[in-house]
Amino acid sequence: MSAKINVGIIGTGRIGRLHAEHLAFRIPEARVIAVADVQLEEAERCAAELNISTAVRDHRVIMENPDIEAVIICSSTDTHSQLIEEAAGAGKHIFCEKPIDFDLARIDEALEKVKKYGVKLQVGFNRRFDPNFRRTWELIHEGKIGKPHILRITSRDPEPPPVDYIKVSGGIFLDMTIHDFDMARYLIGSEVEEVYTVAGVMVDPAIGRAGDLDTVVVTLKFKNGVVGTIDNSRKAVYGYDQRVEVFGSGGMIGVSNNKPNTVRLSTSDSIKEDLPFFFFMERYIDSYIAEMKEFIRCVAEDESPSVTGNDGRLAVVIGKAASLSYAENRPVKLFEIL
Amino acid sequence: MSAKINVGIIGTGRIGRLHAEHLAFRIPEARVIAVADVQLEEAERCAAELNISTAVRDHRVIMENPDIEAVIICSSTDTHSQLIEEAAGAGKHIFCEKPIDFDLARIDEALEKVKKYGVKLQVGFNRRFDPNFRRTWELIHEGKIGKPHILRITSRDPEPPPVDYIKVSGGIFLDMTIHDFDMARYLIGSEVEEVYTVAGVMVDPAIGRAGDLDTVVVTLKFKNGVVGTIDNSRKAVYGYDQRVEVFGSGGMIGVSNNKPNTVRLSTSDSIKEDLPFFFFMERYIDSYIAEMKEFIRCVAEDESPSVTGNDGRLAVVIGKAASLSYAENRPVKLFEIL
Amino acid sequence: MSAKINVGIIGTGRIGRLHAEHLAFRIPEARVIAVADVQLEEAERCAAELNISTAVRDHRVIMENPDIEAVIICSSTDTHSQLIEEAAGAGKHIFCEKPIDFDLARIDEALEKVKKYGVKLQVGFNRRFDPNFRRTWELIHEGKIGKPHILRITSRDPEPPPVDYIKVSGGIFLDMTIHDFDMARYLIGSEVEEVYTVAGVMVDPAIGRAGDLDTVVVTLKFKNGVVGTIDNSRKAVYGYDQRVEVFGSGGMIGVSNNKPNTVRLSTSDSIKEDLPFFFFMERYIDSYIAEMKEFIRCVAEDESPSVTGNDGRLAVVIGKAASLSYAENRPVKLFEIL
Amino acid sequence: MSAKINVGIIGTGRIGRLHAEHLAFRIPEARVIAVADVQLEEAERCAAELNISTAVRDHRVIMENPDIEAVIICSSTDTHSQLIEEAAGAGKHIFCEKPIDFDLARIDEALEKVKKYGVKLQVGFNRRFDPNFRRTWELIHEGKIGKPHILRITSRDPEPPPVDYIKVSGGIFLDMTIHDFDMARYLIGSEVEEVYTVAGVMVDPAIGRAGDLDTVVVTLKFKNGVVGTIDNSRKAVYGYDQRVEVFGSGGMIGVSNNKPNTVRLSTSDSIKEDLPFFFFMERYIDSYIAEMKEFIRCVAEDESPSVTGNDGRLAVVIGKAASLSYAENRPVKLFEIL
Repeated sequence: MSAKINVGIIGTGRIGRLHAEHLAFRIPEARVIAVADVQLEEAERCAAELNISTAVRDHRVIMENPDIEAVIICSSTDTHSQLIEEAAGAGKHIFCEKPIDFDLARIDEALEKVKKYGVKLQVGFNRRFDPNFRRTWELIHEGKIGKPHILRITSRDPEPPPVDYIKVSGGIFLDMTIHDFDMARYLIGSEVEEVYTVAGVMVDPAIGRAGDLDTVVVTLKFKNGVVGTIDNSRKAVYGYDQRVEVFGSGGMIGVSNNKPNTVRLSTSDSIKEDLPFFFFMERYIDSYIAEMKEFIRCVAEDESPSVTGNDGRLAVVIGKAASLSYAENRPVKLFEIL
Repeated sequence: MSAKINVGIIGTGRIGRLHAEHLAFRIPEARVIAVADVQLEEAERCAAELNISTAVRDHRVIMENPDIEAVIICSSTDTHSQLIEEAAGAGKHIFCEKPIDFDLARIDEALEKVKKYGVKLQVGFNRRFDPNFRRTWELIHEGKIGKPHILRITSRDPEPPPVDYIKVSGGIFLDMTIHDFDMARYLIGSEVEEVYTVAGVMVDPAIGRAGDLDTVVVTLKFKNGVVGTIDNSRKAVYGYDQRVEVFGSGGMIGVSNNKPNTVRLSTSDSIKEDLPFFFFMERYIDSYIAEMKEFIRCVAEDESPSVTGNDGRLAVVIGKAASLSYAENRPVKLFEIL
Repeated sequence: MSAKINVGIIGTGRIGRLHAEHLAFRIPEARVIAVADVQLEEAERCAAELNISTAVRDHRVIMENPDIEAVIICSSTDTHSQLIEEAAGAGKHIFCEKPIDFDLARIDEALEKVKKYGVKLQVGFNRRFDPNFRRTWELIHEGKIGKPHILRITSRDPEPPPVDYIKVSGGIFLDMTIHDFDMARYLIGSEVEEVYTVAGVMVDPAIGRAGDLDTVVVTLKFKNGVVGTIDNSRKAVYGYDQRVEVFGSGGMIGVSNNKPNTVRLSTSDSIKEDLPFFFFMERYIDSYIAEMKEFIRCVAEDESPSVTGNDGRLAVVIGKAASLSYAENRPVKLFEIL
Repeated sequence: MSAKINVGIIGTGRIGRLHAEHLAFRIPEARVIAVADVQLEEAERCAAELNISTAVRDHRVIMENPDIEAVIICSSTDTHSQLIEEAAGAGKHIFCEKPIDFDLARIDEALEKVKKYGVKLQVGFNRRFDPNFRRTWELIHEGKIGKPHILRITSRDPEPPPVDYIKVSGGIFLDMTIHDFDMARYLIGSEVEEVYTVAGVMVDPAIGRAGDLDTVVVTLKFKNGVVGTIDNSRKAVYGYDQRVEVFGSGGMIGVSNNKPNTVRLSTSDSIKEDLPFFFFMERYIDSYIAEMKEFIRCVAEDESPSVTGNDGRLAVVIGKAASLSYAENRPVKLFEIL
């Protein structure tokens, strides 16, 4: 018989609520039996809507529930490493949203615990599960473009988050570019060795006053010789811009944006198409389902998740190097951070 | 309080199972409380998987259940008009898959019952709810292309159904082109007056031996002067081909196919993209959810469904005219059929 | 030594001027030594600009010049068959703009003379030499789409010609659709057997008052079983619309419009592209050069032109059948015209 | 009366021959009356084919011909600055291929002479005249994307030149990237302040042995705050890759490659398009004509060319900075070079 995996979710904000819904309705192999949120009414509403039996304020109720095999950590970043340690100590498998922590030492401690207690840990780099990027990865690994030479990632948000969020976000490199650092490592299959950053505050001076940047271009050198660039903006007025290009000795792969429809309107003035999907909840919905399916499958079949704690750690390392590069206007090697 | 609409589903084959899943997991305003299928084990499996309490062989259990407000008719076409009449007599609102019947007199009787008992009836022309075609409709109705002049619909399946199915399908015009006839009426907003058909058996001689065609081009004249063409093939080797173009005095709208990813691979040989979605279950999944949401909303809010019994009837009329046109190789006016 | 082919041009209106320029500057194998036009100052201006030594009013000066091996007939349609006969009688090879004549008997007489005197005749179906349509032809003939089943041609002008022109144009089928009839025969490589026309006056009532149509859809049945449609409009506000699609047992070829640039502009409102090339002088410029190169090459190397007098004749036959079909609202077989 | 501008061409290799043909056949306002090449037979062949009266080995024949108003310098780079000085001294207007010189002091001397003698000088950055990039410039200057933030240029050749050429090419930055440096300045309308280069030898080790690079990514910081990247490869197996993207506060402009046809072939395997134009002679033919028209127009109407000697100089400065950046693996400010 195939028993369902019992899951507890910690944090029922936007992303926690999303994972809860997917686990409840789209992944028959899982059963959410408890949700926790420091704002209890959030947890309760989520539980009511999704027919989940238990909603609590204190996440320890989940940690102590012996029926729960796996926890989904969707609380604020400053709680991630602590919750990972608790869950590992309780013998529960862990899915944790990115980033693991802003502090490398705390990440290392948490990963140490995960290792010590032998639980599984998957980090929420959902874009690896997106059909476009997954197909790109496949084509690269089938050798369709030969040996990669140049990588280009464009990743632009439709609008900046509130400045209050930016202040606690860890900065653009750990909040936004971190997804692209992971994508770069995922697609190229080699480690980043050195980064160089140019950047500015072009979208909103308030972001600068909060100590952050809103427009960045990061150049990457990989161990295998590949060179790449990532460009980010906090505000693309035409919507969420999520593209990748990998150029190699045998060809090139280009990924363009996903659109809500394929309609083209030709008038006396121009040919028009509708804008791409507005933001990540619309654009990446399939990848959120796929990453959670993968996590549940790994738990059920006792396999290792493909997005590891080390992946979570290295994206933070690159982010810190990119930040230092900007501060000192020089290329920074990753071993300076490690 | 917003009570859920209790629904019974009759027929749990491929399309019935799909509607059941959507009603169970994607449409919180509905609750499926019973499923029926002449193959009981099908109904039972569906009920088990989707947590539905009742599974029966005899659909009358559903008709007689006073808790059920609405029925979803997904059984074979030859049962549709009878089931509509029973459901209407039982005071239940009705969603019925297309076509209503192959016989116009039977359709008329069924619609008469629907009218008499004052229940709602929505016919399953799901493509009207597809984002591409809905957007096309919107742009036309916003006047973006002025007055329509020419309509072109391309609708090709990736592979023909089994010949055994073809024998009971009612023929390509009532089985396949019927969707395009409805799309034509929906987009142009005027009635078809005359049709002319050229066609052949090009895909598989067995289809011809079964008395059917596999490749057809139907020309349409509308009351408002618009002229249009529909082309169908039972076998497009590159996958499900679902395109529309509307040309008017002020511009043109073109709809291209939906794709599973946006990847383009450039090699020394060519630039390649993956094929479109394979068939209707992949391509039109969103429209199936949307049509069912609309039906449930109409029941809940006591509104009239936008896809009416008359829409279901007229698509059959056009199909019969197209068939007669082919048989006699002449343009056929719809009043010859009506 | 490779002597140049001496050419005379009859008619220096828009299209004659264009051929003259190509022969003078783009086709080193040819030399234009005389131009004639009933409006002498037109001929003189053309000669002056292109460094052509002789400009005359009377085309017989060209016919009688023993140095001239080939004539390019670009005068008004009502003179074509007469000029072909004269040129053939004078032993000159002939390039003639379409249509050869509106009268089939006159076409037959002219072609008879061409045959009798053994001169070459190429008819100006320039679109066969367009890179898009040539590539389509190649792919079909390489078997890339298997056996063709369905053909679709869209051919729409950006604006109608003056009504005074329409009155002498021979009607839309012989003036505009004629190019599409030839394209259909060229791509499918089989003869049209039967046509059916639906049409209307939707662009400008003045066109209707002049006895012509401005919007037509012609259905074609070919001897080899292929079915096809052509749609025309005299006014596509978004510019010259020249597309073709051929669907077959092994795939599909689609041709989209040529654009003046590849720029895409994304704003908060939509994604925009510039319109396609405005009209045939911009869109088909390469094909005009290529057809003339081919004609000169055939003369120089004593080969038969690929676009024959019979091609010119058959396009007229189909046009007459399409016109009759509209008049009588019934499918018309070509043998009714022949 | 509008007299023609008499032109002499120095250097009748590939690019000189191209300009000669354009001036002879496509630009009626010009007349080529002499060509010179150190390989006399090259000059003679060019003259014979294009009907040019004089072909000489010694360019001084052109410099001393008082009938010649303008010279086109297409000889090898090491002769450019000397020829500019001679032509200026002879009072002739100058079109010079890029780069002006590899040595900044020599460029300065040459530009000084141009200034002293008051002749016009246009440098051969033909891509500014390409319809795609010109349209991009227009849209930026019409404010369609607001204030530019990020620039991305991709420029990849289909195959590397012979290693013997590479040895005298001045290196990839002055031979290939120089076009992109100019494009960056042209589109952004601000000066580059600092560059940073990552690069490698990935295409062919022989290029590395010749002391050059074949794959480079250059990051640019502009005075107005814009950040940008240029990526180059000497070998894109899918053909000449010439794209640009400009992202700004109000939108984005993207330029994709030009293609020889618009055909799309769908088979059971994939959807395929033909590769882009192979290389610059096919891709940029229109821009070569347009830049030469502009030069002749400036001479005829006594206007200043839009691509100046200073433009030619600054592209070399940026190239030297990019080279130094690579050598020292650090960002380099342009004033270090100036």
